[in-house]
Amino acid sequence: MSSKPILVLTTGGTIDKQYFDALSEYQIAESVIATVLERSRVEHPVRIVELMRKDSLELTDADRDLIAATIASAPEDLVVITHGTDTMTDTAKVLASLTGKTIVLVGALSPARFTESDAAFNLGMAFACCQSAQPGVWITMNGSVFDGLRVRKDRAAGRFVAA
Amino acid sequence: MSSKPILVLTTGGTIDKQYFDALSEYQIAESVIATVLERSRVEHPVRIVELMRKDSLELTDADRDLIAATIASAPEDLVVITHGTDTMTDTAKVLASLTGKTIVLVGALSPARFTESDAAFNLGMAFACCQSAQPGVWITMNGSVFDGLRVRKDRAAGRFVAA
Amino acid sequence: MSSKPILVLTTGGTIDKQYFDALSEYQIAESVIATVLERSRVEHPVRIVELMRKDSLELTDADRDLIAATIASAPEDLVVITHGTDTMTDTAKVLASLTGKTIVLVGALSPARFTESDAAFNLGMAFACCQSAQPGVWITMNGSVFDGLRVRKDRAAGRFVAA
Amino acid sequence: MSSKPILVLTTGGTIDKQYFDALSEYQIAESVIATVLERSRVEHPVRIVELMRKDSLELTDADRDLIAATIASAPEDLVVITHGTDTMTDTAKVLASLTGKTIVLVGALSPARFTESDAAFNLGMAFACCQSAQPGVWITMNGSVFDGLRVRKDRAAGRFVAA
Repeated sequence: MSSKPILVLTTGGTIDKQYFDALSEYQIAESVIATVLERSRVEHPVRIVELMRKDSLELTDADRDLIAATIASAPEDLVVITHGTDTMTDTAKVLASLTGKTIVLVGALSPARFTESDAAFNLGMAFACCQSAQPGVWITMNGSVFDGLRVRKDRAAGRFVAA
Repeated sequence: MSSKPILVLTTGGTIDKQYFDALSEYQIAESVIATVLERSRVEHPVRIVELMRKDSLELTDADRDLIAATIASAPEDLVVITHGTDTMTDTAKVLASLTGKTIVLVGALSPARFTESDAAFNLGMAFACCQSAQPGVWITMNGSVFDGLRVRKDRAAGRFVAA
Repeated sequence: MSSKPILVLTTGGTIDKQYFDALSEYQIAESVIATVLERSRVEHPVRIVELMRKDSLELTDADRDLIAATIASAPEDLVVITHGTDTMTDTAKVLASLTGKTIVLVGALSPARFTESDAAFNLGMAFACCQSAQPGVWITMNGSVFDGLRVRKDRAAGRFVAA
Repeated sequence: MSSKPILVLTTGGTIDKQYFDALSEYQIAESVIATVLERSRVEHPVRIVELMRKDSLELTDADRDLIAATIASAPEDLVVITHGTDTMTDTAKVLASLTGKTIVLVGALSPARFTESDAAFNLGMAFACCQSAQPGVWITMNGSVFDGLRVRKDRAAGRFVAA
């Protein structure tokens, strides 16, 4: 199988949320993705770029253009994007025009800093998906590999479903 | 993408090791795979079969035949096998003769019950790989998707490398 | 040493905060104290009463009177109260009038549901303090046993200091 | 309350056990006590001395004499000893002759590196006990503060009981 290097772009979202006692609130903090990869004994060549720290509801068109431009100009063909779950599918649509890249959007419903989090599993899915799947845009959540253009988040149920 | 159901076979290995104070030793315990899937909010259709609880150095030819026969007769085309890492590639060779099945062997270098474990990430990789990859036998360890017939464990380095 | 039973009153606070993805916010959830005690293999006789689920900034005089009355009428002489950290010392003052009870107020700066939390350690301190200390009101935070009437929270520094 | 500094002596035992995949066995590894204290936001003045790394069944009379001598010559009056659970009470007897010191022996039935461990809670108990209790030798396990000379480990039940 390919050992082609993977570009990991972090954009924020629940996966990187931290609790700040002094504020009595959560905020998106320094990304824990590198820590998760180290703990998971990842030896695959990876380049991590912390692009922004935003709740996905705050992402603008300009933010999405920046994500697309970063991928287009990157030497890597395999891309994992950590992203808030609420507008993940909007970003997928913007990235669909990119060719020759296998792009996987991934996030978490519970912050990676929690004991009971889906973050490590989801990141593992994203790493395997970008190595195994055809070029295109994919979303890996709730144990499934979804076509990034044919999935929606059921916010009330707290899960992604094929659309 | 496919939402075809996944068969998960557990066979033992480090991933399921537990520490027993009364014995002052580790032993393979009740599988924690279901717990990891629940914590990871997996909604994908899954059937878990606890086939054996063995260190992979103890697996016999008969054990490997049982694994192959279980897969051959299963209705699922997508299969994840949790397995000790030391002889994972031996089992891969036995399973290579099966056709029409996408089989992923996966384990952990540190027990899933540890805070610092690669288990959840690796299982996530296996779930995505069996949905995204072509039929055949794959191994997902150390952040890479390996061809199951072209990989070896470097025991001294504690990692898998393409062979 | 005494194996006198311990009454644990939960009142809310950061220690029991959970993250709800559907709301994109933290809220005080079902208390995890029982889970922490089980995981910590506590065999000491304990009675847990979930009295309220409040951020400590929301606690009213009536709430504090209820806490005091619950302790006064309880058969146990040893009492642990889980409590938000911001007004823990206010509650300590109200409880100072109770006699013959060893009362320990305890909370956490990071939710117990986080991997990196001070909750289990702090609860352990509270359990030992109510068994070892003289009757009175104590606060166990940041590794120290504080006289409940001579301590304050340095909110900016995120820690308790003797006052 | 006292903010007298605490001496922490680590001697090994289950609390510091690590799993080594290359050996397929557990061994006592670098002590995680400092990590647990940091995660628990301990600000209390502490000095940690890693005295030995032994299973407590391997501790010799000379080892126990060394522990006693280290405490006797230390400037701190408050002492926490992390120790394997099987012979903790033997060490307690040796230390009983020391005067003017509040000594707490503590360990864990499950390694601190496990998600489900009693280590942090037990260490918290030890920290509070040495600050709150009278001089003497104490053991803090299973949620109870035990007189170090009147307790035994029920190995079959996996817990300490007053004797």
